Amino acid sequence: MSTQVFSYQQLADFTVRVFKAIGCSEEHAQTAMRSLLSADIRGIDSHGVARLSGYVRLWEVKRVNATPDIRIVHETPSTAVIDGDSGLGLVIAPYAMQVAIDKAKQVGTGWVSVRNSNHFGIAGSHAMMALEHDMIGWAMTNASPLVAPTFSIDKMLGTNPICVAAPAGKQPAFVADLATTTAANGKLEILQRKSQPTPTGWVQDKEGNSSNDPHILKQGGALLPLGGDREHGSHKGYALGAIVDLFSALLSGANYAPWVPPFPAYVPMPAQQPGKGIGHFLGAMRIDAFRPAEEFKQSMDHWIEGFRAAQPMPGEEKVLVPGDPEREMEAARSKNGIPLLETVVKDLEETGKKFGVSL
Amino acid sequence: MSTQVFSYQQLADFTVRVFKAIGCSEEHAQTAMRSLLSADIRGIDSHGVARLSGYVRLWEVKRVNATPDIRIVHETPSTAVIDGDSGLGLVIAPYAMQVAIDKAKQVGTGWVSVRNSNHFGIAGSHAMMALEHDMIGWAMTNASPLVAPTFSIDKMLGTNPICVAAPAGKQPAFVADLATTTAANGKLEILQRKSQPTPTGWVQDKEGNSSNDPHILKQGGALLPLGGDREHGSHKGYALGAIVDLFSALLSGANYAPWVPPFPAYVPMPAQQPGKGIGHFLGAMRIDAFRPAEEFKQSMDHWIEGFRAAQPMPGEEKVLVPGDPEREMEAARSKNGIPLLETVVKDLEETGKKFGVSL
Repeated sequence: MSTQVFSYQQLADFTVRVFKAIGCSEEHAQTAMRSLLSADIRGIDSHGVARLSGYVRLWEVKRVNATPDIRIVHETPSTAVIDGDSGLGLVIAPYAMQVAIDKAKQVGTGWVSVRNSNHFGIAGSHAMMALEHDMIGWAMTNASPLVAPTFSIDKMLGTNPICVAAPAGKQPAFVADLATTTAANGKLEILQRKSQPTPTGWVQDKEGNSSNDPHILKQGGALLPLGGDREHGSHKGYALGAIVDLFSALLSGANYAPWVPPFPAYVPMPAQQPGKGIGHFLGAMRIDAFRPAEEFKQSMDHWIEGFRAAQPMPGEEKVLVPGDPEREMEAARSKNGIPLLETVVKDLEETGKKFGVSL
Repeated sequence: MSTQVFSYQQLADFTVRVFKAIGCSEEHAQTAMRSLLSADIRGIDSHGVARLSGYVRLWEVKRVNATPDIRIVHETPSTAVIDGDSGLGLVIAPYAMQVAIDKAKQVGTGWVSVRNSNHFGIAGSHAMMALEHDMIGWAMTNASPLVAPTFSIDKMLGTNPICVAAPAGKQPAFVADLATTTAANGKLEILQRKSQPTPTGWVQDKEGNSSNDPHILKQGGALLPLGGDREHGSHKGYALGAIVDLFSALLSGANYAPWVPPFPAYVPMPAQQPGKGIGHFLGAMRIDAFRPAEEFKQSMDHWIEGFRAAQPMPGEEKVLVPGDPEREMEAARSKNGIPLLETVVKDLEETGKKFGVSL
């Protein structure tokens, strides 16, 4: 598939103009843009500008409120629940993360559960806000039900990612950002576009049989929890996805399990929803609430250098540390620009046309 | 293999007497016994009394201090670091969890990182302490290096478990307790005793090739992170195990990565250890720091009932909720007693003989 290369600034300008066109304030448009483009620059193409038209369509069907009144509805010194007023998760999650950081400054840690939100982009974008404060950042979110728990054929959970970001000293930060499924939905979409089979253990068909068809979700199939099947620990991936759901939605009063609102605006909302919007969970832990930050960072450097020095298996160049591939991608794309598939470019152009904004 | 059945009380009496014989106070002996036997009663046989002789051997080589001065070395309103003074993790972890619970009562959440400890038994035992306080409990620990990160042949991490326990209303509590590997080491030990092959994806040989030999760790092989290989998401299991290591050891000043002390007393300590003992991480979150506990529990019931009602795949009886198998085992063993393998019985008898304590 052919691609076209854009600079970060080109995509940033376009994205801000689109968000402003749907009614976002300048500040919200900038924040939403930064959340969204952090995916493109880090190489997680499924969660970046390729989704811009999706957010616009959610606004068109009145599922996204461009001028939300984001507010804390309950709090203690180390916790808060935030109601996002149906705003963009791309704006609500950074707001919630800032609340977590402020609480961590006061009492050591801050933990914020969010309801009434929408898709928040990549978890890493929010968790990494903690780094410059010498804090460890956490971000989780629930998502549209695409995943069948172990032994089930019903789709009960989203790909429910977990991100933990921890600062190091001379070494770059540790950033683990992972969907709790064998493969993220974005990886499946890449195989769909190429019409290539999935590896065994990624998806099952509507009867729960192992499948290699990347289109199987449209035929009643499901993504599988990390582990793939019971023998390979899928009950652990299922449990991790469940933990994310509990923290993101049951602590906040958002929708959970199969009742989470679907991302595509054309998919009807589930009946009898038990909560409001989708849910996130953000956390910040001040390093020096445990140990002097310099000591911790020296240990992190030692830890990271130990893993980089581990013996690779024959045929592999090196052992990676969580965050390495995305950081390398960010360095390359900052220099060389961000390649977008022609289908994505066309989609952006059509979205821009709605508002007289050109790419 | 033949087994012999004991009542919980029989094993409890014996275990307390052994811990007292090595010098533990009555209170510590009782606490250590409860931590240890919570594994047997819940069916996690690898982490229960079968390990008692191992703890005694660690005491014999002076790696376990039976009369530790467990103390808080640093704290903020929501955090603490505890030095376990080389005591039994079975005693230190409940102490640390109580500190987390007390902090959660004050400021909403409490988070405690522990250094200078030893093996703490099952994570679930400690996390579940939060439940009676209407709190969510967390427990993690690092452990002897048996796991090769993705692309590596070096064993760099332990099976580093994560447990999250959350209360429900009419339904039993949600308890997810999982090693961050495809299979826990205990599962491997069961296959070793039966000389049966492991499923593919559990272990690799010393060159990083896939293996089905349950004895392969003795020949330079390694356990694999949850996911098994890169294509099936082993980088996610690796990242989760790394997160556990960071929270348990890098926040506390314990040993980490390949420097974690081995459980078997005959295995020499790694050279140039960067910290003290092994590390744990315990957390408590007061539900009503987020939302009225009754509302949360009603949602938990709804969540759990939704998963129990999910359609099982053909050939499977029902969809389980994390914690179900262990709770069912606990009910059965409370009634019928705890079966121990003859080899374990013999090992306990020999341990007892050292101190004139009979089983």
